[in-house]
Parts: sequence; structure tokens; C-alpha cells
Amino acid sequence: MTTTRLEAFSDGVLAIVITIMVLELKVPHGAGFADLKPVLPKFLSYIFSFIYVGIYWNNHHHMFHAIKKINGKVLWANLLVLFCLSLLPFTTDWMGENLFAKNTVALYGFNLLACSLSFILMERLAIQHEGGQSTYAKAVSSLRKERLSLTIYVVGTLLSFFLPIVSLVLFYIVAIMWVIPDTRIEKTLD
Amino acid sequence: MTTTRLEAFSDGVLAIVITIMVLELKVPHGAGFADLKPVLPKFLSYIFSFIYVGIYWNNHHHMFHAIKKINGKVLWANLLVLFCLSLLPFTTDWMGENLFAKNTVALYGFNLLACSLSFILMERLAIQHEGGQSTYAKAVSSLRKERLSLTIYVVGTLLSFFLPIVSLVLFYIVAIMWVIPDTRIEKTLD
Amino acid sequence: MTTTRLEAFSDGVLAIVITIMVLELKVPHGAGFADLKPVLPKFLSYIFSFIYVGIYWNNHHHMFHAIKKINGKVLWANLLVLFCLSLLPFTTDWMGENLFAKNTVALYGFNLLACSLSFILMERLAIQHEGGQSTYAKAVSSLRKERLSLTIYVVGTLLSFFLPIVSLVLFYIVAIMWVIPDTRIEKTLD
Amino acid sequence: MTTTRLEAFSDGVLAIVITIMVLELKVPHGAGFADLKPVLPKFLSYIFSFIYVGIYWNNHHHMFHAIKKINGKVLWANLLVLFCLSLLPFTTDWMGENLFAKNTVALYGFNLLACSLSFILMERLAIQHEGGQSTYAKAVSSLRKERLSLTIYVVGTLLSFFLPIVSLVLFYIVAIMWVIPDTRIEKTLD
Repeated sequence: MTTTRLEAFSDGVLAIVITIMVLELKVPHGAGFADLKPVLPKFLSYIFSFIYVGIYWNNHHHMFHAIKKINGKVLWANLLVLFCLSLLPFTTDWMGENLFAKNTVALYGFNLLACSLSFILMERLAIQHEGGQSTYAKAVSSLRKERLSLTIYVVGTLLSFFLPIVSLVLFYIVAIMWVIPDTRIEKTLD
Repeated sequence: MTTTRLEAFSDGVLAIVITIMVLELKVPHGAGFADLKPVLPKFLSYIFSFIYVGIYWNNHHHMFHAIKKINGKVLWANLLVLFCLSLLPFTTDWMGENLFAKNTVALYGFNLLACSLSFILMERLAIQHEGGQSTYAKAVSSLRKERLSLTIYVVGTLLSFFLPIVSLVLFYIVAIMWVIPDTRIEKTLD
Repeated sequence: MTTTRLEAFSDGVLAIVITIMVLELKVPHGAGFADLKPVLPKFLSYIFSFIYVGIYWNNHHHMFHAIKKINGKVLWANLLVLFCLSLLPFTTDWMGENLFAKNTVALYGFNLLACSLSFILMERLAIQHEGGQSTYAKAVSSLRKERLSLTIYVVGTLLSFFLPIVSLVLFYIVAIMWVIPDTRIEKTLD
Repeated sequence: MTTTRLEAFSDGVLAIVITIMVLELKVPHGAGFADLKPVLPKFLSYIFSFIYVGIYWNNHHHMFHAIKKINGKVLWANLLVLFCLSLLPFTTDWMGENLFAKNTVALYGFNLLACSLSFILMERLAIQHEGGQSTYAKAVSSLRKERLSLTIYVVGTLLSFFLPIVSLVLFYIVAIMWVIPDTRIEKTLD
């Protein structure tokens, strides 16, 4: 089985997830700049989630650029990744609407954790199907970045019940860590 | 006529159908976890329908991986499949909003039945156009799985007027039956 | 310039147009079948527009299957077609919400007319760019079907101020006329 | 890294951005043509933004038709372009809802400016990665059209606090300037 349609379908879902969040930015009734103020926290959380979905699209792109053959298990793991990501508009919106209140940041962190775990699951299943000797398998074998992200997500989610702002900073650090191009893969593949 | 654009268009529609259901998860106004409680039944029905649309995408993928040439009839049968699937967000939402009340489960079961029948129709038309001697035709010739699904859908829909929970369990069994990779096709095609 | 991305972008827009109409089917609050009654006219108009968008996707598919090279004019004419089609969810919804009242059917007819005119414009520009000697140009040269459709749209739109039901029947006849595969093209291309 | 998936993903996002604006056209409750009047300003701003997104899709299409290899920086610059464009439904709607009031036109102009700047950034990064000697690099090297657009956007945004109508006319002139096919590229590439 080739990856063409899996990529096309995933592109579709990710494009929708990344864009429908803007529908949650309800236009205020007044025409003054002050009327935009209540939209601001939602806007900030939109930027945040846009970056996250962008990262996942990027990693997805890198992964299926390297991996060429998949099986039924990978298809379903991919659907699990898409499912977790499809919940981001909801958790983002809840967080934005409640001005980054403790519980809402915790749920958001939990959602990021679920996305991350499902992505790692998909990666492992794909590598296993390829035989573990592929270039991609070697490139991502260390899992250092993944382990660090997971740890920060867990810490951040727990911490959010006390210091939600610190959690957001932690999640933000993970994001930056991933925005910086994945040199492991680029190096190995070149 | 080749299947490239039929697949691209179907991927688009399925990606939207699977994702817009999340728009029905209205963010609660409070920031407590208890405030999320009314969203729970809708969330459960979202998971349910996500799996179903995932199954259809999977089967669609398998089918058009094997079938290479189509005609106008298959195009229209495919649109009928997409139409039936596009109603899932509505029936899912009605069921979730009314806590899986009898009528709503019946309508949901009827919707699943319509999806299933239209998919079988498309499959038959495609096989007929290919001449019935193709590998795919032989792989799915027994129709055992399809017949079993249809029977369960009809039983489940009728039963939902008395025991909606049992119907949901039945629909769930059909889902699992299909999530397990379609070994018939994989075996024959390999 | 090749047509790959024009087709991909159009597939995306058409997939969204055909699917967002289902978002207008607002889930009723009650769980009885009688509660679904107010949704019925909207559902009927949804079916209607689904078929129309399906026809346009079909014709678009046929056309760019035959035409291989385009220029900037064709790109913009294609955007005009997509714009006219993107208004269908609005006019469909207005018609469904007002139980097929005269004005609403007239606007719907006008929308169908605009879609049809813009499609013919795109077709002419594409044929002109190809040199007019292509197989596709010959296949659609008679314009008989197009002329008949346009006439019915104009008559139907005007008539809708007096007999909206008759207009809908006329629009329905045009739809059926196009659902029947475009044998002109299939014959010539085979 | 090839551009196939970047194009597919961008097509998806742009298709959604261009189409969801129609969801903001709320269907009026009455069935008279007069009831459509409040929708008119929103409809006008929809047309406006549809053309703008169309222009960006067109330019995107031209650019990645010429550029074949990208790196991580271009991927992220592309996501920035998509982010700026994804805000258009919001700023368009605010402007339409407030009858083109001063502040709303200013924000709209600022949004157009951001789209333009991010697109130029992406273009520069892509050219830099290609080595600056490519046909595309030469075709767009003058930047005359880009500089003129940016100047008009800045002037228009500032002016909108005094004469919003003039600003809209200016933005409209930029649009027309870009709708006319980019002969620079077509000439050089042919």
C-alpha cells in the first residue's frame, strides 16, 4: 500500500483543523478597536494551536517523505493522530474563552500529550512495518526529542493546576524546539 | 476514466465530514471540569462517527487501490455514498444532544444502513464495469461481511425503539468487525 | 501551465461547498420524529443542491480530463465558477428556510443561471486557448444542451414569481438532463 | 524536499478560507428581497476577499510551478502566509458587519499588508534556497509590483482613519493590478 491517499486525506483534515479555529473568533458587534479586546485571548490561543498543527503537518510531511510503504495498522494509527488533532479547536477555544484558567490549560496540555503519544505510536508502527533498518528508522531512533517533549507535556499538564502560565511557557518551549527544522532527518536523508 | 480526481474529491468530502462534527462540540461557558459534562454524550457520539467515517475512508481507499477504471455510473454512486456520509454529522449530533434517545438511535442506525447500501451499490457497479474477473471482484465476491453488517444494521435500527443501548453495542460490533483490516483484500492483492 | 493544481483547488472548494450545506441543518431540540419536520424543507433543498454541485464537479472533471493546457484567463474564469457555486449554500438555505417562497426560488434560479453562464464562459476560454481543434472542442461544439439549460433557467427564474413549484420542477428537469452521463464527450473521447 | 505536499496542503487551506466566508452570510428570516439588504455589505466584502484569496492562490500556483526545491524555512514561511490569509474571514466579516467603518477598514488593510509581507518573505527565502540564479528569481527580481502594492497598503491603511472609501478603492486597484496575469513570469518562463 502506498502513502499517496493517506497523505492527501491527512492534508485535508489538517487543513480543516488549522482553519476552522478561526471560525471561533466571533466578530464583535462594535466597530472600535476596544471591541476587539475580548477576542484577544482567543486570538492568542489560535496562534498557539496554529503553530502546533503546523508542526504536526511538518513532521507528518517529513515522516511520509521517508516512509514509502504502510499497512492497515499505520492507517489506523494515522486516524488516531488526526482524531487527537481534531480536538485541538475545542480545547483551544475552551482555554481562550476562559482566559487560560487552570483546568482549561490542563485539558489543553493533555490534548497535546495525546497528539504526541499517538504520533509516536504511528511512527513506531511504520518503522516496524519497514523493518527497522530504513534511513528514517535510524534518523529518529534516539527518541531524545520525543522523550523530552512527553516529559514536558506531563509536567506542564500537572503544573497547570497551580501555575497555568508556566505550563503555557513550557508548551511554548516544546513548540519552538520542533519548529527548528528536524536536523536529524534532514542530515540523514541528504 | 481514471480514479485520481474521484479519490481527491472523496478525500476532501470525507476529511470535511470527519472534522466538522467537532464544530458541534460547543464550548461550555464555565471553566470547571464539571462544565464539560454536558459535552460528554456528544463527544462519545463524535468518537463513534469518527471511527465510522474512518472505516469508510479505509474501504474506499482499498477499493480504488484495486479498481483502476470507472464510468459515469460509478461517479454518481460515489456521490451517493458521500451524500449518505455527509448526513452523519447531523444524525450524530441529534443522537448526542438527546442522550441516545430511542428515535435518535434509530435514525442513526438508518443512516449507517444507507451508507452501507450505497457503498455496496458502488462496489457492484465498479466490479460490473471492470468485467467481474478482476482480483478485487474475486476478493470481495463472498459478500459475507457485507451481508452480516446489513443484517445487524436492520436489526439494530428496529431494536433501537426498545433497547437503544443494545443497538449501539451492535453498531459498535460492526465497526470493530471492519476496523480489523480487510484480510480478504490484502491476501488476494498481495 | 498544467491543470493539476487548478483541479486540486477546485476539488477542495467543491468538496467544502457540497458539505457545509449540511451545517445549515440545525439539529432540533426534541427527540421525536415530529421534531424533525421543520428540518424537512431544508433537507430537500440540500439534496437538490448536492445534486447540482455533483453535476458541476462531474462536468469539471470531464472538461479538465480532456483539456490539458490553460492560461491565466481560464484560471480566473474557474474562480468565477467556484464563486457562483459558493453562493449555493446561501441561496439554498434561504429557500429551505422560507418553504420555497417565490422570491427565494427566483434567487436560487438566478444563482443556477450564474453558475451555468460562468461555466460556459470558462469552457469557451479553455477551448479558445486550445485552438478550437481539440477533441473536447468538437465534442461540446453544438452547445445544444447548454442552450436548453440556460433557457430553462431564465424561464424558471421568471416563472418563480408566479409558480415557484413549477420552477423547481423545471430546475429538476435540467438536473436530470445533466445527471445522465454526457454521452457526447464519452463517445468522442473513447 | 519537493513541493507536492506543500501545494496540496496550501490548496486545502486556501479552499477553506475562500469558502468559509460564505458561512458568515447569515440567511435573513424574511422571504422578501428587502430582507437581503442587511446582507449586502457583507456580500460586497465577501466578493472583495474572494478576489484577494484568488490572487494569492494564483501567485502561489505560479511561484511553486517555477520553484521545485524547498527547505524547512520555506515551509514555515508558507505557514505564515496561510496564517495571515486565514485571518481574512475575520477581518472581512468585521468590516462587512460594521458597514466599512474606519477602524474596520484599517484592520482589513493591515491584514492585506501582513499577507503581502509574508508572501514576499516566502518568495525571498525560496529564491535564496534555489541560489538566486533560477528563471523565477530573475522573473520577479525587480520587485516593482510588490513595492507598489506594499506602499498602497500602508497608505490605504493610514488613510482609512479619515477616508475609508478611498482606502477601499486603493485596495481594489492593487487587486486589479494583480488579477491581470503576471506577464513577467509568463514571459520569462515561456
